[in-house]
Amino acid sequence: MKYPNGLNKDYKKNINYKNRGMNLEDDINLANEYYLIHNIASIYKKPTPIGIVKVDNSGIIHEAYFKTPSTTDYNGIYKGKYIDFEAKETIENNFPLKNIHEHQIKHLNTISNMGGIGFIIVSFVKLEKTFILSNYYLQKFISSNIRKSIPLKYFEDYGYIVNYKLNPRLDYLKIVDILLEGENNEFKENN
Amino acid sequence: MKYPNGLNKDYKKNINYKNRGMNLEDDINLANEYYLIHNIASIYKKPTPIGIVKVDNSGIIHEAYFKTPSTTDYNGIYKGKYIDFEAKETIENNFPLKNIHEHQIKHLNTISNMGGIGFIIVSFVKLEKTFILSNYYLQKFISSNIRKSIPLKYFEDYGYIVNYKLNPRLDYLKIVDILLEGENNEFKENN
Repeated sequence: MKYPNGLNKDYKKNINYKNRGMNLEDDINLANEYYLIHNIASIYKKPTPIGIVKVDNSGIIHEAYFKTPSTTDYNGIYKGKYIDFEAKETIENNFPLKNIHEHQIKHLNTISNMGGIGFIIVSFVKLEKTFILSNYYLQKFISSNIRKSIPLKYFEDYGYIVNYKLNPRLDYLKIVDILLEGENNEFKENN
Repeated sequence: MKYPNGLNKDYKKNINYKNRGMNLEDDINLANEYYLIHNIASIYKKPTPIGIVKVDNSGIIHEAYFKTPSTTDYNGIYKGKYIDFEAKETIENNFPLKNIHEHQIKHLNTISNMGGIGFIIVSFVKLEKTFILSNYYLQKFISSNIRKSIPLKYFEDYGYIVNYKLNPRLDYLKIVDILLEGENNEFKENN
């Protein structure tokens, strides 16, 4: 299997991105460390799923492959709520939907239906803008569009921009607060 | 690094345990599939964290090693609540605390303090008995004992036995219902 979407970020980072500065994943991981230290939230990136073929007696793996993830990259707890999201960078001025697996989109919807907070964080690398789009508006776009990518305009209209600040650089839970406030309204509109 | 605790279960299973029948992890995974299909809960096992050293152009990994997990094995959402637990088998008639990493114990406590439901599921293989012990009683044991293993009696007194049934075989959320009911009382006692 070739690299699945977003699965080889850690590896690529070590090889190519070393001098590039922070990427979205680094920013989220640093924010999560900040949130944990300050008892604000406990949110972690799930390890990349790996299928192991060969391993020796000392526990060194000699053959393995990347597996397709069943769920999203990040989950955890914030203000007593279950939080679940996928984070993606795009170099386009739109967000190609092929960057998220279909079962990840379905997973986010399951989470919302069960009372959790599901969303995507998308970083438009060239524009240096990062948005959060709630699961509600993600599903709304998919169900009412045949387009294969979400235009930037849709993020501007229905998403929330995450402003960069000193510490944590990407304080994305500030936006999650807005999603939490709007949760009941969106739920009503949805049902 | 040698195999960390519980990290090589998948691998060991394929090698040694093939004809042994179901183990605790299989039972939990099957229960989780059942819960998901029936819209009861969305709970997943996190992938084993792997450090990748060498990977070729086709995405095949040629050198990697097992990393120590930061958190517990399982988390997800049930009845709108964040659920987080670690599952372990023991062949002893007690549960050696070295089977859980110290940061996993700390993680479970963080989750409880943040309003999530944290616990351990321990299967006593020889006795064919499986118990759930809430984070509350896990921490209580650790803080008031110098013993390096939790005796079966403690699970009998303060935990809940998970009875095996037809489908799902290990319906552990039935016990989580009891933890959810008792949550407020334990919280009061704790504070």
